[in-house]
Amino acid sequence: MSSVIRILGIDPGSAATGWGVVESNGARLSYVASGVVRPKRGLDHAQKLSIIFSALKGLIEVYHPDEAAVEETFVNASPRDALVLGQARGVALLAPADAGLPVAEYAANTVKKSVVGKGHADKAQIAAMVKVLLPKAGDPSADEADALAVAICHAHHGGLRRLEKAS
Amino acid sequence: MSSVIRILGIDPGSAATGWGVVESNGARLSYVASGVVRPKRGLDHAQKLSIIFSALKGLIEVYHPDEAAVEETFVNASPRDALVLGQARGVALLAPADAGLPVAEYAANTVKKSVVGKGHADKAQIAAMVKVLLPKAGDPSADEADALAVAICHAHHGGLRRLEKAS
Repeated sequence: MSSVIRILGIDPGSAATGWGVVESNGARLSYVASGVVRPKRGLDHAQKLSIIFSALKGLIEVYHPDEAAVEETFVNASPRDALVLGQARGVALLAPADAGLPVAEYAANTVKKSVVGKGHADKAQIAAMVKVLLPKAGDPSADEADALAVAICHAHHGGLRRLEKAS
Repeated sequence: MSSVIRILGIDPGSAATGWGVVESNGARLSYVASGVVRPKRGLDHAQKLSIIFSALKGLIEVYHPDEAAVEETFVNASPRDALVLGQARGVALLAPADAGLPVAEYAANTVKKSVVGKGHADKAQIAAMVKVLLPKAGDPSADEADALAVAICHAHHGGLRRLEKAS
């Protein structure tokens, strides 16, 4: 039985949505692809969301992930900023769900703990650990690194879950 | 030239998303249909959003609106509640945009002013005026009435815009 799981990690943001695809084979992780979707400023909300949705749908068609994981966005924001962030997050949750993928959500602290080993790591520490865990990722941008980190976090948790099921 | 415009109004909420379809023919408004999408409690975010999206896509296929209008959701909420509301709103903006429809957004006060004549009307006043303007709507629920109200608001504003373009 093949136990290779391909995971799409998504880090939605109001300006840029990072994405990363990772393969998990037991304890072994490998980098597949990553990038950032950044709709032009000046477009209205609906147009920006449509661009993010089309991009994520396209990525799912190209990379055929088995599962998706989305980071819980930062909510220490004003209600208005949280609303705009929520709109991008809604589309990030929807795109894989609409394609029939299971979608897991992870709090930022859970992602940090899973990748760096502590819940209060900064962005630079996350990017550094992502590069250690996925050397083929090269030098990912912060948004890409965060998306790869949530995919790694899901690999760790998913592996655990699957282990529990099997035992 | 036919000047009948069919408008889909959407009032997204974290628990229920109201929708209403209205036809605007110059100053004449008529009711087409309305309802509420209310995903089961207990489903996770991605599943709920997928249900809202599928329902809105289905409504667009059935009723063929020309344009869509979405009410700006209430943001006097905690950042966490605003985030969840934003997720539903993102899908409400996305569904018509993804179907190629122009999507307008209206602040709640603009909708109230357009329908009731003042920016601080309560829900009961909105529902009462919607019933006056669209007698065939029967006795719509609050979520339906709000969605019909944003469609009416768009008819008023759209009519004005089209008039400006023509002159």
